[in-house]
Amino acid sequence: MSVESVSYVNVQTFFDAEIKKMKIKNCYFPLFVSPGVLQKEKDHIEGFAPEVAWVTKSGESELEVPIAIRPTSETVMYPYFSKWIRGHRDLPLRLNQWCNVVRWEFSNPTPFIRSREFLWQEGHTAFATKEEADTEVLEILELYRRIYEEFLAVPVIKGKKSEHEKFAGGLYTTTVEAFIPNTGRGIQGATSHCLGQNFAKMFEINFENDKGEKAMVWQNSWAYTTRTIGVMIMVHGDDKGLVLPPKIASIQVIIIPVPYKDANTQGIFDACAATVKTLNEAGIRAEVDSRDNYSPGWKYSNWEMKGVPLRIEIGPKDLANNQVRAVRRDNSAKIDIPMANLVEQVNDLLNNIQRSLFEVAKQKRDACIQTVNTWEEFAEALSQNKMILAPWCDEEEVEKDVKARTKGEIGAAKSLCSPFDQPELPEGTLCFASGKPARKWTYWGRSY
Amino acid sequence: MSVESVSYVNVQTFFDAEIKKMKIKNCYFPLFVSPGVLQKEKDHIEGFAPEVAWVTKSGESELEVPIAIRPTSETVMYPYFSKWIRGHRDLPLRLNQWCNVVRWEFSNPTPFIRSREFLWQEGHTAFATKEEADTEVLEILELYRRIYEEFLAVPVIKGKKSEHEKFAGGLYTTTVEAFIPNTGRGIQGATSHCLGQNFAKMFEINFENDKGEKAMVWQNSWAYTTRTIGVMIMVHGDDKGLVLPPKIASIQVIIIPVPYKDANTQGIFDACAATVKTLNEAGIRAEVDSRDNYSPGWKYSNWEMKGVPLRIEIGPKDLANNQVRAVRRDNSAKIDIPMANLVEQVNDLLNNIQRSLFEVAKQKRDACIQTVNTWEEFAEALSQNKMILAPWCDEEEVEKDVKARTKGEIGAAKSLCSPFDQPELPEGTLCFASGKPARKWTYWGRSY
Repeated sequence: MSVESVSYVNVQTFFDAEIKKMKIKNCYFPLFVSPGVLQKEKDHIEGFAPEVAWVTKSGESELEVPIAIRPTSETVMYPYFSKWIRGHRDLPLRLNQWCNVVRWEFSNPTPFIRSREFLWQEGHTAFATKEEADTEVLEILELYRRIYEEFLAVPVIKGKKSEHEKFAGGLYTTTVEAFIPNTGRGIQGATSHCLGQNFAKMFEINFENDKGEKAMVWQNSWAYTTRTIGVMIMVHGDDKGLVLPPKIASIQVIIIPVPYKDANTQGIFDACAATVKTLNEAGIRAEVDSRDNYSPGWKYSNWEMKGVPLRIEIGPKDLANNQVRAVRRDNSAKIDIPMANLVEQVNDLLNNIQRSLFEVAKQKRDACIQTVNTWEEFAEALSQNKMILAPWCDEEEVEKDVKARTKGEIGAAKSLCSPFDQPELPEGTLCFASGKPARKWTYWGRSY
Repeated sequence: MSVESVSYVNVQTFFDAEIKKMKIKNCYFPLFVSPGVLQKEKDHIEGFAPEVAWVTKSGESELEVPIAIRPTSETVMYPYFSKWIRGHRDLPLRLNQWCNVVRWEFSNPTPFIRSREFLWQEGHTAFATKEEADTEVLEILELYRRIYEEFLAVPVIKGKKSEHEKFAGGLYTTTVEAFIPNTGRGIQGATSHCLGQNFAKMFEINFENDKGEKAMVWQNSWAYTTRTIGVMIMVHGDDKGLVLPPKIASIQVIIIPVPYKDANTQGIFDACAATVKTLNEAGIRAEVDSRDNYSPGWKYSNWEMKGVPLRIEIGPKDLANNQVRAVRRDNSAKIDIPMANLVEQVNDLLNNIQRSLFEVAKQKRDACIQTVNTWEEFAEALSQNKMILAPWCDEEEVEKDVKARTKGEIGAAKSLCSPFDQPELPEGTLCFASGKPARKWTYWGRSY
């Protein structure tokens, strides 16, 4: 993907404005974290230790103490939370930072999906009560759903992670889970964690409550990353290249002059320029490709590869008829548009493409979902690369057992999430894996 | 400085919008750079090598090849410039990224001024001709001047760096130079470099020009950093703490209820809430400090320390007279404002504070500037911590000599810049340091 394809700033602008409405403030904390604080929360560092990158040298000199690059910023920020929070009037403390983090992956580095450095926002908040923390966890998760569904046109399922899959050191993790039909794998889209009081205990984040008693804060952390771009690419892309939803395409309409030998070339270029101007003035992100060293056909392929949602061609016939020809990236449909209706019809088309991308993706995703009740059904669905909804006893040992039993070259199955939207679970339903009484419906599958 | 004091996003929004008008696109390149490309441009790496941080370990494993953290991104980005630029139609290529960089400073780490990690934007552009590159260098420098003077209320001098002080590997460096009267030191505010063709040669950034001949691009790079915040703090701050210009203060007006025992406390709190609402609706960033565990006096000091430009106090007398009392942070002036004129007068006051901060800073800075002609005058002015304007022969050896002759505990003098706005240089004027014929007026002083 080239640098100019995705106007990702639209998603950032949306999210940033939403969290500001929630009185969350932006901040910036350092990239480096000392070994001492990094290792303060035992479960947390156990989860991250193998992936931490260490700086040990500057210039030609060895550092006395190596310093870590943040894999996430709980341990960077919470020593300051401990200093800043004194009384209940200092709560809630709600901060967010837009930054880069580093997790040294060895298994399967994949651009945008699993890379050693990635960009994200990370929110870190502290509340006087668990109820406030619980409420925020879900408010943020809803924003993540909207990023995927309204901007990236990717359907997701909201739910809760299992104990085995939750954030290292946290109390519980909520997630928006996506699914990639082409590879038959689930993918964690973005997560909103309630950290409970584990970090508060280790970092001594205490306050005097409104009754004058000493109390401990309740904390959340939540993040979405540049992985969102990877998910979008995999869900919508096709053999010709990227397919970008209009809301986030940095070029929504590419205009290509199609001159003929004996035709009015200048007239065609003028019409292209006029079309760009009209569209830009209407707030549509349009550009013309007037390069003279490439053929129109070459340009069609080039802009298809870059995923531009709508192509407009202007040739001698269009010029004569005072129209343009529009070609959709998503379904190759061709539409002649009279110049008089240009803005209205282009806007309609872009809205239509945005909606259609989501609907097509949802149909494909839904076709991959299979409900099972027994291990045999589960194994069969897994061999068909499905996203499997199964009744589960919700025991960590059973999840480990499922992983062990499905281990293979293309990866084991794991739980993806227990959806908030639970189907009915009839009395007496048994766990697909253990045969014990089932407690909830949970999605399973291979994943990224 | 606490996290919420500076609404730095205003400066970013301004600069980002301006460069977008110039058709410069935002992008993101990796934090890590391999030793091979980092060392490609000899002068460049000589300049940066001692400050480069190296990652040598992930988890418990030694990396096969250590990897560097970017001190700046020329060497990260230009291998891609070489791939992307083929013909003159691919030019200009104009990119910018907002990111963090790391330079391992040992001498004098100072928050915001010289820190191991800092945030910046770095622009990297390539042109077909030197003329286009030269023009952009100055356009960007003018944006940097506006950031300092219009937003941060800090006067700067535009000029060119000496050969000795220019960017490592570049052709020439332009700068906006500020001065800190309290410490008597100059400080490089932000720099806009013409890189010439040095990097193009090493990274093979070639193109076919419009005559079909092979040519080499002309490049620029330019950056402003979080140092801007440090300069602003040092220029405006006083013994009570920060003093923030209204344009970038995240809270422009803090409203403090001043209740008395027997007065109408609820009425005062209601008036505070109404005042905030009125100001917010008018686009003024106002908040009320309604904490009940601190006295009004404590709050005054607290918000003065945080640099909020305007304080509004509301007590029983103000309530009775349907007015508020405003107190300026910059000069402690007190003004009673009738509620009916609230928005208008507060806006006037904020504009006035912004202007006044700049004017006061400029007077103080100007009082530090001293023009000299001889070494004796220079030495005297330096002992008085001045920003010294002197006629110079513009020879690198002479600058090194000045440094050697002024070496001392509080640091040697160096050239700050040769101002674009040159006073007349009468025929026969001699260099203050070498006695050779002078070529230009240049600012000298100790610096950060």
